[in-house]
Amino acid sequence: MIETPYLLFLGDAPDQLAAKVAQGIKDWRPDNAVGQFRMDGCKADVGLKDMTLAEAKEAGAKTLVIGVANRGGVISAAWKEVLVEALNMGFDLASGLHNLLSKEKVLVAAAEQNGRALHDVRVPNVEYPIANGKKRTGKRVLAVGTDCSVGKMYTALALDAAMKKRGMKSSFRATGQTGILITGEGVPLDAVIADFMAGSIEYLTPDNDPDHWDIIEGQGSLFHVSYSGVTLALIHGGQPDALILCHEPTRPHMRGLPDYTPPTLEAVRDLSLTMARVANPDCKVVGISVNTQHLSEQEAKDYLAKVEAEMGLPAVDPFRHGADRLAEALEAI
Amino acid sequence: MIETPYLLFLGDAPDQLAAKVAQGIKDWRPDNAVGQFRMDGCKADVGLKDMTLAEAKEAGAKTLVIGVANRGGVISAAWKEVLVEALNMGFDLASGLHNLLSKEKVLVAAAEQNGRALHDVRVPNVEYPIANGKKRTGKRVLAVGTDCSVGKMYTALALDAAMKKRGMKSSFRATGQTGILITGEGVPLDAVIADFMAGSIEYLTPDNDPDHWDIIEGQGSLFHVSYSGVTLALIHGGQPDALILCHEPTRPHMRGLPDYTPPTLEAVRDLSLTMARVANPDCKVVGISVNTQHLSEQEAKDYLAKVEAEMGLPAVDPFRHGADRLAEALEAI
Repeated sequence: MIETPYLLFLGDAPDQLAAKVAQGIKDWRPDNAVGQFRMDGCKADVGLKDMTLAEAKEAGAKTLVIGVANRGGVISAAWKEVLVEALNMGFDLASGLHNLLSKEKVLVAAAEQNGRALHDVRVPNVEYPIANGKKRTGKRVLAVGTDCSVGKMYTALALDAAMKKRGMKSSFRATGQTGILITGEGVPLDAVIADFMAGSIEYLTPDNDPDHWDIIEGQGSLFHVSYSGVTLALIHGGQPDALILCHEPTRPHMRGLPDYTPPTLEAVRDLSLTMARVANPDCKVVGISVNTQHLSEQEAKDYLAKVEAEMGLPAVDPFRHGADRLAEALEAI
Repeated sequence: MIETPYLLFLGDAPDQLAAKVAQGIKDWRPDNAVGQFRMDGCKADVGLKDMTLAEAKEAGAKTLVIGVANRGGVISAAWKEVLVEALNMGFDLASGLHNLLSKEKVLVAAAEQNGRALHDVRVPNVEYPIANGKKRTGKRVLAVGTDCSVGKMYTALALDAAMKKRGMKSSFRATGQTGILITGEGVPLDAVIADFMAGSIEYLTPDNDPDHWDIIEGQGSLFHVSYSGVTLALIHGGQPDALILCHEPTRPHMRGLPDYTPPTLEAVRDLSLTMARVANPDCKVVGISVNTQHLSEQEAKDYLAKVEAEMGLPAVDPFRHGADRLAEALEAI
């Protein structure tokens, strides 16, 4: 568990997109961040107050979070200078970079000297159990996609916000780097060892109140041959009561797989349900989340209406129209 | 790749079952082993010539293979004495134990001193790629099961033997510890990191002659919630042309999961085919392998005849009746 609140490190981000982790934290857990730290030449701004390390410390920040992608696969000398200073001032560090903080000798030494933690959220720090398949109390909803990167995390976070607004009990359960940094905890599923994947999701979504919903961040797709095993471990470890289908309707082929055509929503519905019912015979598909970013407002409206009619399920773009109707569908269960 | 031939270390095995890795090597790759090494009190015997380390060395043995399970989760002092002596005499060591050879300082030191290798086949020693899903040349058959431990490895090895006997080109592709020790190479799939599972199977079964068959050792089951993700990675990474369904008909529940009923063969056929056809639209189920060890000879015969009639596919117990009819079914493709 990463200590909050954070100071968000934007470094020397070349553009706004490079700071998408920081933007995610700002958008979804604004209370988790007291401000942003930008170096000379930084071209990103997530709209938080610019702070020095000292100002952030004064404001109560506990952890400096790397909210930006690095360049060229290295942690630069300029970054390290700031990171060491932060450790010396009593900050923990947290990062989802491929380059691990814990592989940088100068950071390890400074962390030890100051008794601070280095959180590399890309690497599991728990020995997860093998899944036992036992029925757990509480309810769970999982986002499953026609493809990778269609908006499953966004859907889950929007749903969590909509459910909380309605007074429902819910927890967003992160399974990827960005989600873990946003909430401060979770399972980096893509880095878990094969035998423990499903068990890590059982661990992430334990017994809870009967009216509590875990909203499990989805990964990959049953139809994406590179990552389908990860998706199935989420379905069987999460034993969801409800599924939300996530889709991006303009893909010419599966992400990274030029020879693979994306499946239909019907195919994803049927296969996901067959799989989910192995672990939970009562599982239902309750709604559809469509990422319409490449459609005009009118095209999006038409497409959603068509999908809703064909599938007989609420279909929304949570970015454009919010996730209220999905929350409503879950409330009805 | 582990150097052959082996000397099989049976240690102080408390019974025959403890030496099942050694037995597997003796049964399936007898040419890979020059003899067996037994300590005082050893109660196992795989039927090879008893040899001292010196005799085995003289006979050309390159690697001492731990062919026995250890007790109490430790590598005993008595074992270590033999293992160090073997390293000093120029043997490599190979093991599939949970306790890694490479964590034993005395073995690491002796291996370094003598320039020998310690093969812990439970741990991947390759950085596998992420699967790219590209169609590969050559043919592949995968064993998929109704449950774990129903005889998938045995079926694959028996099929390999039957195909070779018919003059077909085939390679058994190991995905578990025992299989890797039997053949000297493979992928320890249960220990591979989630994102690289399917890629490791692509790596294991590369382009080959058009008439060559990779016989891929199956793992887990799509219906076993603890390991289903591993199974799906095998299906999508292996992109099989043919599937063989493996079944053990007397299980009251899924292995280790008291609340889960084993699926029907029809359910495994349908779900496995749906999954396999994502990667290879031409995939077919060609036969059924039933582990009838808990049935009498007559019961087994009746059961196989019933399955064969119901499923319209050859159904055999390769242990009792050989795998010829499965090889024949593959030859017909």
